[in-house]
Amino acid sequence: MTTPSTPRRVEGISLDPWYNSYADRTAGLSASEVRALFAVASRPEVVSLAGGMPYVSALPQDVLNGSIERVMQEQGPVALQYGGGQGVGILREQILDIMALEGVRGSADDVVITTGSQQALDLVTKLFVNPGDVVLAEAPSYVGALGVFRSYQAEVAHVLMDDEGIIPESLRETIANLRAAGKSIKLLYTIPNFQNPTGVTMSFARRAEVLEIARSNDILVLEDNPYGLLHFGTPAPHAMRSLDDDGVVYLGTFSKTLAPGLRVGWALAPHGIREKLILAAEAAILSPSVFNQLIISEYLNRTDWMAQIETFRETYRVRKEAMISALGEYLPKLSWTDPGGGFFVWLNLPPHLDSKAMLPRAVKELVAYTPGTAFYADGRGGNHIRLSFCYPQPDFIQEGIRRLATVINGELELLNTFAQTGPLHLSQRHNVIAPPPNIG
Amino acid sequence: MTTPSTPRRVEGISLDPWYNSYADRTAGLSASEVRALFAVASRPEVVSLAGGMPYVSALPQDVLNGSIERVMQEQGPVALQYGGGQGVGILREQILDIMALEGVRGSADDVVITTGSQQALDLVTKLFVNPGDVVLAEAPSYVGALGVFRSYQAEVAHVLMDDEGIIPESLRETIANLRAAGKSIKLLYTIPNFQNPTGVTMSFARRAEVLEIARSNDILVLEDNPYGLLHFGTPAPHAMRSLDDDGVVYLGTFSKTLAPGLRVGWALAPHGIREKLILAAEAAILSPSVFNQLIISEYLNRTDWMAQIETFRETYRVRKEAMISALGEYLPKLSWTDPGGGFFVWLNLPPHLDSKAMLPRAVKELVAYTPGTAFYADGRGGNHIRLSFCYPQPDFIQEGIRRLATVINGELELLNTFAQTGPLHLSQRHNVIAPPPNIG
Repeated sequence: MTTPSTPRRVEGISLDPWYNSYADRTAGLSASEVRALFAVASRPEVVSLAGGMPYVSALPQDVLNGSIERVMQEQGPVALQYGGGQGVGILREQILDIMALEGVRGSADDVVITTGSQQALDLVTKLFVNPGDVVLAEAPSYVGALGVFRSYQAEVAHVLMDDEGIIPESLRETIANLRAAGKSIKLLYTIPNFQNPTGVTMSFARRAEVLEIARSNDILVLEDNPYGLLHFGTPAPHAMRSLDDDGVVYLGTFSKTLAPGLRVGWALAPHGIREKLILAAEAAILSPSVFNQLIISEYLNRTDWMAQIETFRETYRVRKEAMISALGEYLPKLSWTDPGGGFFVWLNLPPHLDSKAMLPRAVKELVAYTPGTAFYADGRGGNHIRLSFCYPQPDFIQEGIRRLATVINGELELLNTFAQTGPLHLSQRHNVIAPPPNIG
Repeated sequence: MTTPSTPRRVEGISLDPWYNSYADRTAGLSASEVRALFAVASRPEVVSLAGGMPYVSALPQDVLNGSIERVMQEQGPVALQYGGGQGVGILREQILDIMALEGVRGSADDVVITTGSQQALDLVTKLFVNPGDVVLAEAPSYVGALGVFRSYQAEVAHVLMDDEGIIPESLRETIANLRAAGKSIKLLYTIPNFQNPTGVTMSFARRAEVLEIARSNDILVLEDNPYGLLHFGTPAPHAMRSLDDDGVVYLGTFSKTLAPGLRVGWALAPHGIREKLILAAEAAILSPSVFNQLIISEYLNRTDWMAQIETFRETYRVRKEAMISALGEYLPKLSWTDPGGGFFVWLNLPPHLDSKAMLPRAVKELVAYTPGTAFYADGRGGNHIRLSFCYPQPDFIQEGIRRLATVINGELELLNTFAQTGPLHLSQRHNVIAPPPNIG
């Protein structure tokens, strides 16, 4: 080690000598609540209703092995080489067939393949969002998208939803208020099908109305559709992109219908945007993995992939039923969503319960969930919980909900005790009226 | 298609209705000259000395197939699932062994695995660069890094180099001038080993001196080392990171020692930085491909990967010799670098030749190269050419240089003709004195 002539800056409160060098946008970087749960939830004795991991053990591994072998035998040197920044042409064509199942028509020229659809989210945000620009998102919305928006210093404004999705009046009002405040609104981010975290699906009428509002306000719609094909009997309405080629960037992924470990997703962009999207993708990673793209292409080409999606649908339907039935059995006084597909149920807690504060007690009872606060950019959500039914076996789901009920009922008892004998929340009461000296 | 109530904005000169919506940073997005060459260079009759594609056909495909099979057999469901944002722990440990070959010691905790080292470049820039901040880079430097810096609105200031790498006086002077102009200098980007595009290796004394200058000016060094292990007999000096744990972010990759199609690279960050780097990586892609990471881990674990690197060294050494010998034979009056490793030779053209303008003529003669202008942020480099010897077989390299000599000699003849009979460059002369009517 060379002896420094000038000592590197040392901050009084930081061990990081580069503390003063970071870009302004790093202020938005913080560990998500979902992330902090990963370590906890992976302990085998904990029933995790927290993550969004697909049940990849349902995949036909021998079939997949066959696809991999053929790629290496027939196209090894191509698979192992750099590729184009937009992604492999044949896979982009096959992606058109997949999107057609949800009513989307487009050109393979306008598809950009990415490292999971998360990267597409990142790139679209990078292309459109200046610091201080507004991104509209459902209340609540996907935690990973909120993280991306923050990382480009966007302001997130939540739009209210009900059991038909985004409420048009709330959207109009939010836009009007933001415009009146002089804000520039760039994107409307939505997950219309089996939404993360609520499980809600936007009705067809709402899709058309939301698009119309976005169009008349020059707001680009970012339609994220990871779960659309994973319905439990009734297909979701056609994608919003099927109604508007120029106003919607559509995001898809193989993470839920095949395997997230391959990290292959895509964006179908309006034609005018796609060239910039490709350039941004190239700057970020040069090219997505050709190896992984060819494996998926081969899998789609040679196997009955729709049958596999049917298997996933049935797997998740059974798990969803197990969760809904357990909720009815163990928490009959609460309310929750009953999704028609996807991975998630949104649970409403009784008044005064705080899902974030309750989490350590839940983990002690060996069940994990994601507190509702993770899905809001503004601190809301404390009275909600996202429950995932995608990964655990049905009997574990039932046991998990039983444990959760124990925790919730314990909290309620505590609450009732305080309600009878004194302040509801000591700390809250403390802020209003100073407690008598014998309590303090 | 719903009929829009308000027509979407239409620009007079743009077919893109979102023309006015893009973020300011998109002004820096433009297709690189290397990218434009891809289509041309891939025609089989063209000898491409343009790209930087490793010769993956030299890989033992059966061995690689074995690694893939074992991963799927023994860890299939793990490989196909989401992973941690920082990357797989065992691979991070193995990466320490690889870096140790170049003198770097660190903790697996401080390694972040990325989608190729390109993504690490992107993330580090995102963490540190505000619009208008300066990134210092060698003159010339890697085109893909310049693209990343532009995409975050950095100003790139080039620092002169000679055959020992960055010239310390030039670095001091550049820093002083930028500081005097009130600029904030965030990063010094350097490729110390077998540099892209010049092939130059920074001497050990220079490494220490450059680090000392960076340290005393609070500038973080971004050390990019894709080619370090691919030397032709004499190893490069120890990495700069081996001299300074807190002042250097070190970037490595499996793209050149194994296969770029897997898209696995990494950053070894100072401890204070790595947490932010992980958060930025998670925001961008959630996690790198576990499948690809485990394949590489298995490959490193079960095969004699150093022997494979030896094979690559010998392959590239023979090709480099072929190129240098052909240059001596066909272009004896020119000068070029003679790299001790890596993929590239930097050719100096005779005065008044323009490598960018000459390229179409070269392609017509069925040889492709990268004009030197691609490697500067400021338009310099027109008098230089980057020649890659990594991909074509030696006899193709020789034929490529022969064709290039034909082009260069043709240009020189043209130049001499004009030098004897009239203006050197018609267009240039045109700007000074109007030509007589019979020439115009």
